[in-house]
Amino acid sequence: MRIAIIDTSTTRAAIISDGLREAGLHDLVLIDGTRGMVAALEKAAPDVVLINLENPSRDVLEEFFAVSRALARPIAMFVDQSDAETTAAAVDAGVSAYIVDGLAKQRIKPVIDLAIRRFQAFARLQDELHEARSALADRTTIDRAKVILMKRRGIDEPTAYGLLRAQAMRSNRRIAEIADAIITSDALMGDL
Amino acid sequence: MRIAIIDTSTTRAAIISDGLREAGLHDLVLIDGTRGMVAALEKAAPDVVLINLENPSRDVLEEFFAVSRALARPIAMFVDQSDAETTAAAVDAGVSAYIVDGLAKQRIKPVIDLAIRRFQAFARLQDELHEARSALADRTTIDRAKVILMKRRGIDEPTAYGLLRAQAMRSNRRIAEIADAIITSDALMGDL
Repeated sequence: MRIAIIDTSTTRAAIISDGLREAGLHDLVLIDGTRGMVAALEKAAPDVVLINLENPSRDVLEEFFAVSRALARPIAMFVDQSDAETTAAAVDAGVSAYIVDGLAKQRIKPVIDLAIRRFQAFARLQDELHEARSALADRTTIDRAKVILMKRRGIDEPTAYGLLRAQAMRSNRRIAEIADAIITSDALMGDL
Repeated sequence: MRIAIIDTSTTRAAIISDGLREAGLHDLVLIDGTRGMVAALEKAAPDVVLINLENPSRDVLEEFFAVSRALARPIAMFVDQSDAETTAAAVDAGVSAYIVDGLAKQRIKPVIDLAIRRFQAFARLQDELHEARSALADRTTIDRAKVILMKRRGIDEPTAYGLLRAQAMRSNRRIAEIADAIITSDALMGDL
């Protein structure tokens, strides 16, 4: 497991590295939090990102929250202090573990475990949502295409669906793609 | 905001209560973690549940995870120690904030803020998923009913949909309910 560590100051970096090494995690990449951060993160391709901010201003936090939103990775963030509003912003930005005033060597590993698991749980739910919404969109497309076929060719619904399905198999495309082509074509062909 | 506090020992209950009172939170309900816990929680109807377990065995943790799964409330859980497996079980059980070896007065309020926000984010995603899946199921039902109407009455798709919609409005029911009735009826009527 590769861990990217971002620390704006170097004061507490030793605590983090020690905690990770004692937990048997040695593939660590230190990244400068002040410039070229996003590019460096992409290059490092870490499994999890650990961010440690000492007395961050709201601006600095916002910057890191933006990074979190852009990065599809589990992120654990240690900060010295936080108010309800900032904590809410961290959660909304997809920070998987947000630890206020709780940096201690022996806590690093559990926090990383937590960040990874929470990230996975949230990602799974998002995938399921994406899948359900895609299925719904496909459904609408296929239904519209079926109605077009039923009208134009005077066939019933199972036959229309069979035509779409056969064409999809023949051309090795998804049924929804064939349906989309039929809708596009129909719009150009005009009324019956 | 009402906070239910579950503490299997009373050793650290003072830290929690102090932290909450200093943060201006006074509506606290102490619940015995050993018996009648679920019933007591339901009676208290808290906005958030704070669980503090000192040296919990795996069995005790499992019991609290089961409570977490059953309870549709933000839950913050403080434990002394955890391994990767137990941390994963906590996340999967819906524990919104899981804090390993991090109980400190000044950290209680940020943890509660975090638990609430994370719970809301997850609940929102789950609601959206439920909605998308319901829409998909409704869609299937309505489509099947439309096809039945189109065949039985020799009408086209917009007309069939119009009939379903009109009947739904007349009887103040959802279109999917009307569609479901048609499918049920059709199954009993037999083939055309």
